Amino acid sequence: MRDVAVIGVGMQKWGELWEKSARDIFVESALLAMDDAGVERIDSMYVGSMSPGIFSAQEHLESVLADYLGAKHIPATRVESACASGGLAFRLAFMDVASGMSDVVLAGGIEKMTDVSGGEATHALATAADMMWEGYSGVTFPGLYAMMAVAHMDRYGTKREQLAEVAVKNHANGFLNERAQFRMKITVDDVLNSVKVADPLNILDCSPITDGAAAVVLMPLEMAKKLKRSGAKVIGSGHATDTIALHGREDMTALKAVSEAAKRAYAMAGKRPQDIQLAEVHDCFTIAEIVVSESLGFFEAGQGGPAVERGETARGGRIPINASGGLKSKGHPVGATGIAQIVELVEQLRGAAGPRQVKNARVGLAQNMGGSGGSCLVHILEVM
Amino acid sequence: MRDVAVIGVGMQKWGELWEKSARDIFVESALLAMDDAGVERIDSMYVGSMSPGIFSAQEHLESVLADYLGAKHIPATRVESACASGGLAFRLAFMDVASGMSDVVLAGGIEKMTDVSGGEATHALATAADMMWEGYSGVTFPGLYAMMAVAHMDRYGTKREQLAEVAVKNHANGFLNERAQFRMKITVDDVLNSVKVADPLNILDCSPITDGAAAVVLMPLEMAKKLKRSGAKVIGSGHATDTIALHGREDMTALKAVSEAAKRAYAMAGKRPQDIQLAEVHDCFTIAEIVVSESLGFFEAGQGGPAVERGETARGGRIPINASGGLKSKGHPVGATGIAQIVELVEQLRGAAGPRQVKNARVGLAQNMGGSGGSCLVHILEVM
Repeated sequence: MRDVAVIGVGMQKWGELWEKSARDIFVESALLAMDDAGVERIDSMYVGSMSPGIFSAQEHLESVLADYLGAKHIPATRVESACASGGLAFRLAFMDVASGMSDVVLAGGIEKMTDVSGGEATHALATAADMMWEGYSGVTFPGLYAMMAVAHMDRYGTKREQLAEVAVKNHANGFLNERAQFRMKITVDDVLNSVKVADPLNILDCSPITDGAAAVVLMPLEMAKKLKRSGAKVIGSGHATDTIALHGREDMTALKAVSEAAKRAYAMAGKRPQDIQLAEVHDCFTIAEIVVSESLGFFEAGQGGPAVERGETARGGRIPINASGGLKSKGHPVGATGIAQIVELVEQLRGAAGPRQVKNARVGLAQNMGGSGGSCLVHILEVM
Repeated sequence: MRDVAVIGVGMQKWGELWEKSARDIFVESALLAMDDAGVERIDSMYVGSMSPGIFSAQEHLESVLADYLGAKHIPATRVESACASGGLAFRLAFMDVASGMSDVVLAGGIEKMTDVSGGEATHALATAADMMWEGYSGVTFPGLYAMMAVAHMDRYGTKREQLAEVAVKNHANGFLNERAQFRMKITVDDVLNSVKVADPLNILDCSPITDGAAAVVLMPLEMAKKLKRSGAKVIGSGHATDTIALHGREDMTALKAVSEAAKRAYAMAGKRPQDIQLAEVHDCFTIAEIVVSESLGFFEAGQGGPAVERGETARGGRIPINASGGLKSKGHPVGATGIAQIVELVEQLRGAAGPRQVKNARVGLAQNMGGSGGSCLVHILEVM
């Protein structure tokens, strides 16, 4: 297997992009990534998108997108793993280059979520849960994560305010990110006083509905060095699944797909949790970031809440988490999220993250998961 | 890259399986394939499914299926390329083993199409076309293929009866396949007198709506030989896209994604069209088989119609096409079709196809395409 580098990233402002189609949004980001990489053609393409069939009445997306990108006849693949679709597209692009099958590969993610009603969007997102047992009983995602929050608070004494601190930190970071959907600073009181969604989670504990895309370009590390491209080296890739339904798990206060995927990525990279200097993690709800930070091994079980309260995950802390603003502030176009995490890591490892720059970051981790943790992708990148 | 073998296949009878869920159908085929392969566990899994979100209100399918298969925590990937989803799952499983990332990999396909109304199924299938330009203008798939048929008849003099001969041949083959949805012999008159769908195509020119799954198990060829497993060697894999919309193509009487994917597969395999001794091709409509047989290089442009009329593609002909019964008789659960083609090739190359057996077959080709040819996968298998 060959060493692989990410040498181009592309992403535009996320939000409610009613004036643009899914294909337009994707192509804009893909062309930005190709420009950044200094390549005029790609050998193959992987696109993560969760539910274009329900959101946009358009499946067969990889054919549409390769066509509109002008990359006619390339092998193109759409993958879906609910909210982890982007991370999965990145992993397959990595495999494609590492195996020697392709040289220049684009990995992208896209979701256009605001062309349907809120009820339809909630339905589409619920199809990431076990519809037969969870969905048809009436539980949607805020409810699933609320159950995890209650269990975590009960077992470890995690405080309501600690959940709020995740949102406060991520909005403070996202305030500095010009591509974020919600660039506003918030306080713990704002979170606690915002409208209730599923007890104990309020609206400011939840990531939003977003239109957006992101794209990156990968090539063999040797080729990138020869062509004098800047970027980051992919040193670890881990992928795991778990029971689709929460009730099938032994423990609702930890995420086994996350710890398994992380174990595989750490092993491939030859790194331990304490070697990671910044992380982009899947904060679809505030409780998710806390549980994930424990399942990744950054903190002992039950210590994720106190850690965020002490500022350990802030930009200047011991292990900065979601310097980009995370899903919470940046937005969460589900299929694009996993790729946007890679965009942030590459910019940080290049030292090009501007006001969001994490000092001396040499190794970064991206963690992207589907549903309530039924699937997870973990990638580790290092400066080239 | 390592040599790869398919050493297990699984498929049950296809049809209207109202008493079973998508997950049940998939797991049955997956367990059959694992039993046939003599393996008790798999390292990873790829599943092709076109639109479980619309057909079954269930995305995040790879997590559901890995869970219900009891393969907890494995990396599992769902891919979608409309009706080519199964072929794409097979290609990624092949890459996974060839690259050395995994040893024992399951590739499966599933579509549960009869739990929604006929109108909803037609909508779901239409999302494989360019919804923005084709779908919203009211054209669905019989209409798209009817336009190709009219163009082919106009340019090459292809006769209406020659289209019918494709259906007659495939039903004669499917009559011998106990897993086929429609096991009935038909005549040219039956086809010509069946109800009109989109001129010149009648209902007996169209593949049906089907519930079904199929699965195969791959491992490195060396390992398969050491373990004395029987099966077939994968010697070529080609993948290509084309414009999603018919109106974007220079020529409506040929399929460029098919010829490009075939060129790549032939090059990898070191084979020419005349080296292929049997083929499973994507006869979603009778005209599709004729055009595909030309784009694969089996016949000159315009000679596909006369060839089927002369019996060259019958089981005892020069190049037997769709000995399984094809999509036409066997059924077309869209995500499963590409895998079912591999199932047929492996059974034929093992000499285990019973009454459908093609004599002395040593090299077989499978061609699976999405929509009106916006994507195509071609695989070439050889006896081990």
